[in-house]
Parts: sequence; structure tokens; C-alpha cells
Amino acid sequence: MNSTIAKAFRELQLSICQQLEHLDGVGKFKEDAWERSGGGGGMSRIIHGNIIEKGGVNFSEVYGRMEDTIARKLEMEGGDFFATGVSIVLHPKNPFVPIIHMNIRYFQMENNWWFGGGIDLTPHYIRKDLAIQFHEQLRKVCDAFDPLFYMNFKKWADQYFNIRHRKESRGIGGIFFDRLNKDSGHGLDELLEYTLAVGNAFFPIYQQQVEATHTMPYDDANLEWMKFRRSRYAEFNLVWDRGTKFGLETDGRAESILMSLPPVAEWKYAYTPKPNSLEMETLKLLQQQSVDWLPLEG
Amino acid sequence: MNSTIAKAFRELQLSICQQLEHLDGVGKFKEDAWERSGGGGGMSRIIHGNIIEKGGVNFSEVYGRMEDTIARKLEMEGGDFFATGVSIVLHPKNPFVPIIHMNIRYFQMENNWWFGGGIDLTPHYIRKDLAIQFHEQLRKVCDAFDPLFYMNFKKWADQYFNIRHRKESRGIGGIFFDRLNKDSGHGLDELLEYTLAVGNAFFPIYQQQVEATHTMPYDDANLEWMKFRRSRYAEFNLVWDRGTKFGLETDGRAESILMSLPPVAEWKYAYTPKPNSLEMETLKLLQQQSVDWLPLEG
Repeated sequence: MNSTIAKAFRELQLSICQQLEHLDGVGKFKEDAWERSGGGGGMSRIIHGNIIEKGGVNFSEVYGRMEDTIARKLEMEGGDFFATGVSIVLHPKNPFVPIIHMNIRYFQMENNWWFGGGIDLTPHYIRKDLAIQFHEQLRKVCDAFDPLFYMNFKKWADQYFNIRHRKESRGIGGIFFDRLNKDSGHGLDELLEYTLAVGNAFFPIYQQQVEATHTMPYDDANLEWMKFRRSRYAEFNLVWDRGTKFGLETDGRAESILMSLPPVAEWKYAYTPKPNSLEMETLKLLQQQSVDWLPLEG
Repeated sequence: MNSTIAKAFRELQLSICQQLEHLDGVGKFKEDAWERSGGGGGMSRIIHGNIIEKGGVNFSEVYGRMEDTIARKLEMEGGDFFATGVSIVLHPKNPFVPIIHMNIRYFQMENNWWFGGGIDLTPHYIRKDLAIQFHEQLRKVCDAFDPLFYMNFKKWADQYFNIRHRKESRGIGGIFFDRLNKDSGHGLDELLEYTLAVGNAFFPIYQQQVEATHTMPYDDANLEWMKFRRSRYAEFNLVWDRGTKFGLETDGRAESILMSLPPVAEWKYAYTPKPNSLEMETLKLLQQQSVDWLPLEG
């Protein structure tokens, strides 16, 4: 089973890279294969393109013995483990194109197994029509498997992608799930299918966002705002993201883990956008920390 | 006693700001006073100048009740506390001028009190003569109080300012001390005097570094390297710095805590400088993680 899942994830990574190259039109992925001394390894694929300023699509498949000290950080006991996943972060060139993040992962240890993953969007400028479209697409993927998934995993994303020290969301959220196993009422086969459906939804969802925004003209002020928002993205990943922290604390491959960081980030002391500006409109939405993008119709 | 120490720290902040304005020649500090809802507050002073691209000199004096949940992070029990400190980070414009960090702090709770602090230097380009000069000056400050201080606090700085996930030091270290109390064999008055001596050493030490470097010509490649090293500085502060983590997790004032971050940082995937370049020479020294800048004469 483990090798079946890893194979499906590896194929997904490859097909997403091909689709992204086609979408970008210029950038080509560079491959960087790596091995893990304890067992397994991965393949990082990095792009610098015309639409995507800096992007990474990682695959990993690792296994071996997990020491108790590390297992305790995951609230588990040590033992033989297997883990595989695909992880994507794309930082676009045009400030009106959103940053996107996708991750799917499978973990197996002794009699324990689970899936985790999600897709979330970080627009530098939030456009309500595109935010609604994004969440509608995620709801559709979720509803095909379980009527509770979207509601639960949307809430989880809002809680997870919170830059707590800034009292701001990282972006407009999306879905986030972890430790999804048979307690959900679904078996391994079905949850694999759901996780792959999330993975397969990534490209068409991002394509729509890109096509709606990438030809919009922008000026230096828009670029400044993008670099400012990127500093918040870096803060979230380095301070709060549990995957990043776990990876760095357990001597994971720093370059692959930190591939998520923006190409350039700018910190300004106590900066606030002008009242009634597009920037302020976005900031106010982020400060709500959770927006119900798809309210139930009355 | 608490108010005497806070007063001395506040005066030090002011005199350092005046000296830095004089050194910079153009930049003027802007003041940003803040209050803490639980008791006390602080004054952040921020400069954007000719030599210093972005710098902050913070003073704080806070007190009140510390909850058990927060005290446990400090390996203590809750109770009434008092804390005051001065904290400085300066990011220069010229890549040949080093980043400097200084901090002194005093903490008091029930029958417990201690001092902490240090000065450390992060050159984008390490110059051995200036690194030796820097450490000689720190040794002189320390030796006036205790023959063991320099050796112990230099080692502590090497351990503390370690970007563990990169297997690199942040810079050339300096001195770092924490929980310095009567167990050191020195009383409160003497340790206050030592801590203030460290604070007072900051300006002349940095002045020498600046005067030796700030007129050196630099090109775009030097600026690129500076932005790359700044990304490492940001990683250290956001991932490993205990003061930053404690501040952000306990809902401290984010702008003052993160004043330490560089104006701009750049992340490049798997970047390595050219062999035999100045950049590689610096990187190799950082990878040693501890350099004995002042070896004992034989």
C-alpha cells in the first residue's frame, strides 16, 4: 500500500509540474534529488518563470526508525514509520496573482495510518469574486466525499493559517486536514481517493486564479505591498507553521522545507496602508481572521 | 532598586540614540511610545539613515502578575514580576558594514533577580582584523569584572547564535549571558555595573567597526550577498531566538520584537558562493560555528 500511495504522489508531482510549465510559458522546473541518511529521500522541483517568480513542488518518501524524542513531538511513541507527501508553494511575479500552497501527505506507523493535506490561497490583494470561486471549488471537491469535510476543514484552515502575533490571517484560507483516518467513517481507499482529489484539484483551481489576474497592470506601489505581505508569509512559516518547525527541529532538509519562503521580503516598522486603499481593504479582511466566503443561502 | 535600574537603562537608550545620530550624520530617530495593558510599557526608537538603513533601539519597563502558563516557559512559577531592558539591532546600508545586536536586561520576581545581555556582530563579509578587534574589546569589558566572564559568555554566544538548521553561525558571535545573579560570586550592584559597562561599550565598539568599513565601495553583487545573509538573520530570529519566540507566544508587542528583522531579505534556493570568493571565505568561517578569535599566546 505504501508504495502505491508514494507512486500516486510522485506521478501527481510530475503532472502538476508539467501543467505549471505550460501555464507559465517560460519557466522550466529544475530537479534536485536528495537522500535521507535514515532511509528514503525526495525530489525537489524548483521553477523561476514568467508568471511564477519562485515556486517549488516537492515530493518526499521517507522511512526508517523514529526515535522516541522525535515521536513525542508528534504525540506518539517511537517505532518504524513511513511517510510520503507532495508540497507546493508558488510565489507569483504580478502582485495581483495570489500565492498558493498545497500539501498532501500520508503517514504510517505500526497499526496507525493517516492522511493530511489542504490547499490555501494568499492573495496580496483579495478579490471577493475570486475568493468565493476558490472556496466554491474546494467545497465541490470535499462534498463529493463527505458533506462535513468542507465545513470542518475550512474552519481548520482558518485556525491554522493564523499569524497570531499580527492578529491577521495569512490569506483567505482554504481547507486543511490532518490525522484523517478510519475514525472519519471512511476507509483507507476512500481517504486516499479524497486526498488525491485534493491534489488533482490544485492545478485547475490555481489556473483559474492566474488567468483572471496575471495580465493586470501593476506599479511600484503594488510591488512594495507584495514585498510587505511576503514578510508576513515568511513570519507565518518560520514562527507558526508546525510542519516547518518539526522539519527544522528534527534536522530535516532545510532547503526543501524553506522552499516555501518568498524570493524577497520587506519589513517596514509599524506600516499601515492608506485609508480606503485596496491595500487597506485586504488588510481589514485579513484582520477578521475568518471570513465565511460561502454563506448558506437563506 | 527596580526604578534605579530602569532609569539607568532609559538614559543609556537615549545616549546611544544621540551618539548613533551623530555617527550616521543624516538619520534621526523616531519615537514610538507604547503601553502594556498588564502594567508598564516602553519606547521604541527607529532610525532610517545614511549609514544605518534600518535600526531600532528599544527600551521597555514592564511589570505585573505573571501567569503560571507563561512562567512555565521560563522554568519558573507565576508571581509578581518586574522586567526592564534595552535592545538594539542595526542593519547598515553598506554590505561591508556589519549588523550589530546589543541587549541588556534585568528581571526580578519574588526573591529572584538576574541580569542578562550581550553584544554580537554579524558581518556580511567577515574581516579577520575587525573580528579580532571586536572580541578584544569585549574581553576588556569582561576582564574588568571577572576573569571568567569573557571565556564563558563568548562560548555561550557561539552556542546561542547558531542557525542550527543551516549548520552556520549567525555571525562572529560576541558575548551572551543570562540569569546572572549572586551565584556568579558577584552581588547585584556589581552585576548592574557590569551590565551597564556592556551597554556603554556598545557605541564605541560599533563606531570603530563603522569607521573602518562605511566608505568601502560596493557593487550589486555585494548587495545581493547582503540580502542573502539577511535572510539567514531573519531565519535565526524567527526560528531560534528564544526572546523573540517568548515575546510572540506571550502576545508581546510584535512591532518592537520584530524591529530586529532586516529591511529587505532575499531567499535563493540552494545558493552557494563561487569558490575562493570573499563570500565563500565568510561562509566557511560561519560554518565553523565557533572560531577562537583570541587564541591564548603560547
